[in-house]
Amino acid sequence: MDAGNRRDTVPDILERIERARRRPRLLEKAITMAHGAGGKATRALVDRVFLEALGNPVLDALEDAASLEVGGVRLALTTDAFTVHPPFFPGGDIGCLAVHGTVNDLASAGARPLYIAAAFVLEEGFPIEDLRRIVASMASAAREAGVQVVAGDTKVVQRGKGDGIYIAAAGIGIIERPIHLGADQVRPGDRILVSGPVGDHGVAVMVARGDLDLEIDLQSDTAPLWSLVERLLDAAPGVHCLRDATRGGVATVLNEIALAAQVGIRVWEARVPVRPEVRGACEILGIDPLYVANEGKLVAFVAPEDAPAALAAMREHPLGREAAEIGVVEAEPAGTVLLETEIGGVRVLDMLAGDPLPRIC
Amino acid sequence: MDAGNRRDTVPDILERIERARRRPRLLEKAITMAHGAGGKATRALVDRVFLEALGNPVLDALEDAASLEVGGVRLALTTDAFTVHPPFFPGGDIGCLAVHGTVNDLASAGARPLYIAAAFVLEEGFPIEDLRRIVASMASAAREAGVQVVAGDTKVVQRGKGDGIYIAAAGIGIIERPIHLGADQVRPGDRILVSGPVGDHGVAVMVARGDLDLEIDLQSDTAPLWSLVERLLDAAPGVHCLRDATRGGVATVLNEIALAAQVGIRVWEARVPVRPEVRGACEILGIDPLYVANEGKLVAFVAPEDAPAALAAMREHPLGREAAEIGVVEAEPAGTVLLETEIGGVRVLDMLAGDPLPRIC
Repeated sequence: MDAGNRRDTVPDILERIERARRRPRLLEKAITMAHGAGGKATRALVDRVFLEALGNPVLDALEDAASLEVGGVRLALTTDAFTVHPPFFPGGDIGCLAVHGTVNDLASAGARPLYIAAAFVLEEGFPIEDLRRIVASMASAAREAGVQVVAGDTKVVQRGKGDGIYIAAAGIGIIERPIHLGADQVRPGDRILVSGPVGDHGVAVMVARGDLDLEIDLQSDTAPLWSLVERLLDAAPGVHCLRDATRGGVATVLNEIALAAQVGIRVWEARVPVRPEVRGACEILGIDPLYVANEGKLVAFVAPEDAPAALAAMREHPLGREAAEIGVVEAEPAGTVLLETEIGGVRVLDMLAGDPLPRIC
Repeated sequence: MDAGNRRDTVPDILERIERARRRPRLLEKAITMAHGAGGKATRALVDRVFLEALGNPVLDALEDAASLEVGGVRLALTTDAFTVHPPFFPGGDIGCLAVHGTVNDLASAGARPLYIAAAFVLEEGFPIEDLRRIVASMASAAREAGVQVVAGDTKVVQRGKGDGIYIAAAGIGIIERPIHLGADQVRPGDRILVSGPVGDHGVAVMVARGDLDLEIDLQSDTAPLWSLVERLLDAAPGVHCLRDATRGGVATVLNEIALAAQVGIRVWEARVPVRPEVRGACEILGIDPLYVANEGKLVAFVAPEDAPAALAAMREHPLGREAAEIGVVEAEPAGTVLLETEIGGVRVLDMLAGDPLPRIC
């Protein structure tokens, strides 16, 4: 900072800091696990490699699903690669996860999920019986979510070139309501709701990996959220933005929204629902449950006047019984998430740096 | 065959044989490379695992893209996983291939390609400079094909759990014409056209892999086919079915159609365009170029009265200059492809059995 340069006003400097925050630098020469962790490194990769070459207004918005208009019909399109290991874990498997993840990304755009296309990358030697179980689980998840798998592809790679099974799922849905959900709709004053306890999926998978020397009885929360979203949208017209808090957890969602909408976010740690077993596992690992992946948890940004109705609607739904209001959107500090801790302090809840968690997705 | 059982009429027996042909058995306990080769084993896996659990009329049709109606608009949806190694090869790379493959599957359904969603599975250690080149190639292919990449996902897997880069691409397109293309539209008498020389992509990739101790100057044919398809559909209303002859080559497409439409197919080997360098490489490898993958070749089934116009339309397009009529659809033998060889014999051009080719997709 050159104090002699009079043109560097405080707002200029702040703006420059913000810009840098929004466009993290990509310094690495090769892909690291951190690039897949959902935090700062992922963001840098997405920004500096993908958006730089492929960017367009829809992609740049970095929503869970793209909102499109095709032939006068409003559609949502999404894709995700599912690389979870192990493929079977308490409460689910990679098959139902692929369906739920896809359905939930569409639901986050306010779209009724309709169709799924699934591409499988199978490693030579993968047991066909395991594949059958996974595909049966997809079928059952699809039925439950009211979607059909209508297109697919299967590739086989040599032993040592995969990890048993990867599934890339894409989905389309229809946006039937005259709504526009997205980070650009978030306003200071909006209340932040989460549909239930956070971190269940990530901890369940870590336990299943054997990374934790723990025997805890915890299931992944993997579930399809469209019926919850539908109820929420019916009850609360002031829903501004929805996110499925997967990789990187709720903290990552909040940071993404704070950056994209250039707002401040304040979260009350004591109000964030966390199961005691998740809290315990996270303490042992030295991680914050707010950064741990969920596969059936919605984060909703709702106009203040609609927040009580939104919370009530969530709580009436089986998947939202433990929903809670955990924070509020503020005008400043733009791009920053502040956490009011349980012991009364305030600290920045930053984007994840590095790769503090085992790969669980 | 029990000659004493009078109920076993010849048609019964033939029908049973046909049924067995249509539903090959899956005897293996674990995934083998053959399950990814596009031939009999792939078909068995798709039939006995995927269709058995997920089947519905759209998926069962096993077209290159699903034809759907959403909100009164006719859409096509497709997905493919791209696992080609090496990721760079003469004439292209995994990036443009992912765009072309997706666009071509949509084009095969008669759909104007609109939007792509791409999921990346990156292996730890993959050079970011290579990723940049691949993404730039996708961007350029998308521009050329008139599509936008509007959704994406990036996952990173540990070293040894991938092969540098895998891309799963999904695409949606709009079916603007009042047409229905598909195997169920193919009729005896239909002429079979191919848009140019076969086998270029597969041989180019095999050369790039170093599997062949050959120095030949051959490029992959990877290219977007929608503008060719559009011209074809405008010129020939009697187009019944289109296929993008990728994995398993033209022979696999012909077998799929023969089985699905329960027709016979007769191909004249001498009329199949093959570049001399591809023919030479295939002779060394002991494989038939008809089984080798293409990434920019269309196979069209066209009503006989429209075949001349269709062929002329193809030849007017830069990607169809060497188009040829290579065969005809016949009523019998149902489910079978017969090849009239250059030396005057006739033999069954069967589905690929086993895994005779290196993994090239």
